[in-house]
Amino acid sequence: MTDHPAVQPPEAEPAEEEELYGLSEEDLRRVREALETNQVAQIEAIAERLHAADVADLLERLTSEERRIVVGIIRGTLDPETLTYLDETVREEVIEILGPRDVAQAITELDSDDAVELLEDLDEDEKQRILASLPPTERAILVEGLTFPEESAGRLMQREVATVPTSWTVGETIDYMRASGELPDDFYDLFVVDPKHKPVGSVPLSRVLRSRRPIRITDIMDSEIDVIPVETDREEVARLFRQYGLVSAPVVDEHGRLIGVITVDDVVDVIDEEAEEDLMAIARVGESDFHVPAHQTAFRRIRWLLVTLFNTILAASVISRFETTIEQLVALAVLMPIVAAMGGNAGMQVVTVAVRALATRDLTHANAYKVLGKEISVALMTSVVFAAVMGVIAWVWFGRWDLALVLSGAMIFNIIWAGFAGIAIPLTLQRMGVDPAVAAGPFLTTTTDVLGFFVFLGLATLFLL
Amino acid sequence: MTDHPAVQPPEAEPAEEEELYGLSEEDLRRVREALETNQVAQIEAIAERLHAADVADLLERLTSEERRIVVGIIRGTLDPETLTYLDETVREEVIEILGPRDVAQAITELDSDDAVELLEDLDEDEKQRILASLPPTERAILVEGLTFPEESAGRLMQREVATVPTSWTVGETIDYMRASGELPDDFYDLFVVDPKHKPVGSVPLSRVLRSRRPIRITDIMDSEIDVIPVETDREEVARLFRQYGLVSAPVVDEHGRLIGVITVDDVVDVIDEEAEEDLMAIARVGESDFHVPAHQTAFRRIRWLLVTLFNTILAASVISRFETTIEQLVALAVLMPIVAAMGGNAGMQVVTVAVRALATRDLTHANAYKVLGKEISVALMTSVVFAAVMGVIAWVWFGRWDLALVLSGAMIFNIIWAGFAGIAIPLTLQRMGVDPAVAAGPFLTTTTDVLGFFVFLGLATLFLL
Repeated sequence: MTDHPAVQPPEAEPAEEEELYGLSEEDLRRVREALETNQVAQIEAIAERLHAADVADLLERLTSEERRIVVGIIRGTLDPETLTYLDETVREEVIEILGPRDVAQAITELDSDDAVELLEDLDEDEKQRILASLPPTERAILVEGLTFPEESAGRLMQREVATVPTSWTVGETIDYMRASGELPDDFYDLFVVDPKHKPVGSVPLSRVLRSRRPIRITDIMDSEIDVIPVETDREEVARLFRQYGLVSAPVVDEHGRLIGVITVDDVVDVIDEEAEEDLMAIARVGESDFHVPAHQTAFRRIRWLLVTLFNTILAASVISRFETTIEQLVALAVLMPIVAAMGGNAGMQVVTVAVRALATRDLTHANAYKVLGKEISVALMTSVVFAAVMGVIAWVWFGRWDLALVLSGAMIFNIIWAGFAGIAIPLTLQRMGVDPAVAAGPFLTTTTDVLGFFVFLGLATLFLL
Repeated sequence: MTDHPAVQPPEAEPAEEEELYGLSEEDLRRVREALETNQVAQIEAIAERLHAADVADLLERLTSEERRIVVGIIRGTLDPETLTYLDETVREEVIEILGPRDVAQAITELDSDDAVELLEDLDEDEKQRILASLPPTERAILVEGLTFPEESAGRLMQREVATVPTSWTVGETIDYMRASGELPDDFYDLFVVDPKHKPVGSVPLSRVLRSRRPIRITDIMDSEIDVIPVETDREEVARLFRQYGLVSAPVVDEHGRLIGVITVDDVVDVIDEEAEEDLMAIARVGESDFHVPAHQTAFRRIRWLLVTLFNTILAASVISRFETTIEQLVALAVLMPIVAAMGGNAGMQVVTVAVRALATRDLTHANAYKVLGKEISVALMTSVVFAAVMGVIAWVWFGRWDLALVLSGAMIFNIIWAGFAGIAIPLTLQRMGVDPAVAAGPFLTTTTDVLGFFVFLGLATLFLL
């Protein structure tokens, strides 16, 4: 674009537009242009117009060098929430650019759960320096937050909770809320607590608003509430929210006292991250490395590919046992990858369904035999279809019905094995405490490769030479 | 268990316990026991104690025959919400057992978004019969709901919205809410609308509760709101909720008028389903078939495996061109799967990261070259490492340095190709309007197999014979 007149649109209207559609390519282009021509005001204006989440996107899209300059320009007006939206790798970089004083300032402005998330990524020295500079109450809350296990409910929860005693009416509740300055920014339920601060019920705000002032809070509360112990794993927390469509849930300490609240927006992030973890594990990437520099990405990927290398070397060593067989009938070298690949792919289908079903608790040790039975039936039908198709193709191709029969037999064996192992391997790994999403795939394909080659070449040695 | 005394626990307390932990194996066992001994009351008691979501789990875990009996027993007391929690396959079965009259009754009790979800699965005749039996207003809303495209914001939204005019104060709002019977069950934000019913702002309920009666609603509303056009794809809706941490968002028709609201609990389901779709697509299952009968599962899986079969036949035909080469040097048959597998696995890592980055909009056509450059650097480093390792192993194994060199060269070529194609294939598919999560994997591994075998065996023919 060359001489497009630089008319600034009126302030309110287009801001809404941008909000809906997020960071545009146009924004990014304009930031880059402003960087080249050193127009600080232009960059400030764009950043201020964007939602914190979109500023985070903007920073992620820039190169390290551009990022350093842009953060330098907007540090004065940067919404602290931006930090919580950043990808971990980029966040570490931005925190370093901001320095401890600005980060400490940001932490005091954030909700306790977001503040803990920022703190946990810092190195010990910096963490202590920042904590020391905070007011005592806030420091105490954050220090305690850091003591909860990573990935636990304690890390997800916000300490700011709106609670009311059992004795209050709707009127007293509304008066208290109008007067109090200590309530969280946004909340969706009030929690009713007994004198020991144990939660006895919850009331959605919409119900408070619809009830007349003299009505007692205990008369409109739900007393069947899902109480989450502080040590609960975050994956389990996400499962509960999903299962029961919760919007917020109280978190309790070991004495059953209310110490925090988890809201659904935090859980959305967890669901998203857990789904990404499973996806990346199945493809053996570990975790998304999109924003990670090339050499680090290479290092991580190589680590995961070592398993594949080991697997294929094992398979190759099986093939090498049959070198003389292959020398006499080279068609075997042509057909053997088909046996291994069909078994491996059929098995990965089973593993993926099983991993997902374990996560949603559809598959448990109690119904394992039923599921195993189903998968073996599926494998039987699948293998017969492909054995027939490939058998005919091989017969036509190489003109030997006995070769076709050996191929079909090996395919049936390998696909049925894949159906069995696709359920048995994830279940066994889970019982051993190993994440099946990560380990089941490599284990499975190693067995389908090794067994596929062994059975096919073995049968060929017995019957075809 | 034989003579465990059948003491019934007190009603309120253990219900809460069960709520938190969902359907237990013990519950399932007791239902089965009651079915065998025909204890109808026992089954009713268990079902009534469970949350609707857990009753759905219970029905999913039973066999078709058990399900028919249990639904027959609990149909009178069945919470209509249970139907919305069921897996699609099981839901169709339960709807058939219940019959049109009970389903119509359930639909009148559900929120409009859930009702539409139930209706859309019915066949045309049944749908019409049920619609005809509904009160006119409700029928009109559902008929309109069904006209919105599947997977659009229109299908996700609830028609019941809490709106207030711009002229009101907090006091007037609270009085109206106390008097009105038309509000949705639960809501988290009030939407402020102008005389044309266009949304001009939103107010979180917590803010209404904290404000004094004379304050004007327009003074406490957020005027920068994310308005969702009714035709928006649900995946885009989920992205917006995730990106901005929304709890509810207004849906507008083509004239910008407020016609519904989407709440975060609906979006949680979408995020979950979309994540599952991506996971299943990468493993080529299509969609989770856990609750689908064996023969249907087999049919679906076979359809997906046909792509693998085609891929491997293509690769086999490449190998068959080099039969004479393999006959002269059978070590090639041993090593060739390693070249193909390392390329395929390295490529799937790239594809998975790319598919995910396309979904989160981290990868776009604007930064494609930058990302491509990074992936080629990663592939270069990765391939050199594995070429070196495998080269040494092959040299030691077969005692031929020239064979080792050919292997290393083919691996470097194939892994770099995988890095390039792992980005280029998903981007091209997206530009062509094909879902990259589904199609990128098969395309990629076909190329890494075919090229892997061709380059390795081709180089061997040129340099080793």
